[in-house]
Parts: sequence; C-alpha cells; structure tokens
Amino acid sequence: MVKYQSVDLDLLFYALSDATRRAVLERLAEEGDLMVTVLAEPFDISLPAVSKHLRVLERAGLLTQDKDGRIRRCRLVAEPLQAAADWIDRYSHYWETQFDSLAEFLDGIQPKEN
Amino acid sequence: MVKYQSVDLDLLFYALSDATRRAVLERLAEEGDLMVTVLAEPFDISLPAVSKHLRVLERAGLLTQDKDGRIRRCRLVAEPLQAAADWIDRYSHYWETQFDSLAEFLDGIQPKEN
Repeated sequence: MVKYQSVDLDLLFYALSDATRRAVLERLAEEGDLMVTVLAEPFDISLPAVSKHLRVLERAGLLTQDKDGRIRRCRLVAEPLQAAADWIDRYSHYWETQFDSLAEFLDGIQPKEN
Repeated sequence: MVKYQSVDLDLLFYALSDATRRAVLERLAEEGDLMVTVLAEPFDISLPAVSKHLRVLERAGLLTQDKDGRIRRCRLVAEPLQAAADWIDRYSHYWETQFDSLAEFLDGIQPKEN
C-alpha cells in the first residue's frame, strides 16, 4: 500500500465545497477519463466556468488534465480524498456517541405502549 | 442509530477548508465545550476574526453557541461530518485501486536483486 503524499487540506476541502465540482468528480468516477467538452455538457454553465472549476480540482490534486493539441482530457485522482477521510474519521466516535445519546433521549420521550 | 438530518455539503466542506476552523473543531473535540474567549486564546487572530470562523462552523451545523449573558460557550456537533465521510467513502475503492496500480508500477521499476 502506497501512502498519499502531503495533501493541502485547505485546497482539498475547498475543492469539495461546490456541487458542480463534486458532480465532476462523480462523472469521472463513473465514466472514466473524459474530454473537457464532454465533461461540461450536462452542466448549465459556460465552458470557461467549467474550466475554472477544473483548475480548482487540479490545484487540490483531485484531477489531471492531459492536453493533446486542442483536446483536453480529464482524469480523476482519488488518493487525496483519503487524507480528507482520515481527518474526518478522527471524529467518528464523537458523532457515534452523540447519535447514541440522541437515540436514548428520543427513546425516553416516546410514549410507551403496553 | 439516528441518521443525520439533511446536510448542506457545500457549507460543510467550505467550513472544513480552513486550518483555523479545523483547529477549533479539534480543540472542542479534545477539551469539550469552551467559552469563545478561551477558545480564541491560542489563535494569533483577533476575537472578531475568531467569531467569524465560528459563524461559518455554525452555519455548517458543526458547532452551537450558547449565550449566557455576555458569555458565549461553544460546543462541537460532529454528526454532519458523517455526511462528508459518506460522500468521500464512495471513492475509497478508486484510491485503493490507484494505490495498488502505483505500488505495482513502483515495484516493477525497482532494480531486482539476485
């Protein structure tokens, strides 16, 4: 198992903070590498606006763009997401504890039958 | 198990995209509920700047602020992080596959001994 290189969590979480950028990652994950023009089709925004989103994803290390003449092809790079998952995972026992407390509270206020 | 309510992933990931805000969450996780003035102490920024970060965390549902007169006390709310973890987790098999390919590639280019 190769460990991810140093990841800039600021850039990474910022890249994920936009629904269009998350949708781009979802499409690349489902459909594999795509040309920018094909990738841009379903989005109701201009090609320059899509390109701007792609640059944000590229800076975060989540995407590469290969140029072949005038054609740009995008590829998902998923490894940096592991750093985000690791950071979030440190808090999983907090939300589990808080869920359990809430479940107990809700259970306590429900009217008992029989 | 109580499932998290609808979470705005845009606000959530944006809240996580700043090192100071992540450090605030880390302190609250480690030390429990804290007054804003105590929470702000280790950060080399003004109290209004800290308050601005707290509002971003509050909007993302990651923090509550209880007011008692002039005293504000902050509490971590970890549950929304589960939505972020769930979103990221859908990509875990991609980074695992990509890691494995890289490992195989690196293994292949290393000079063989014996």
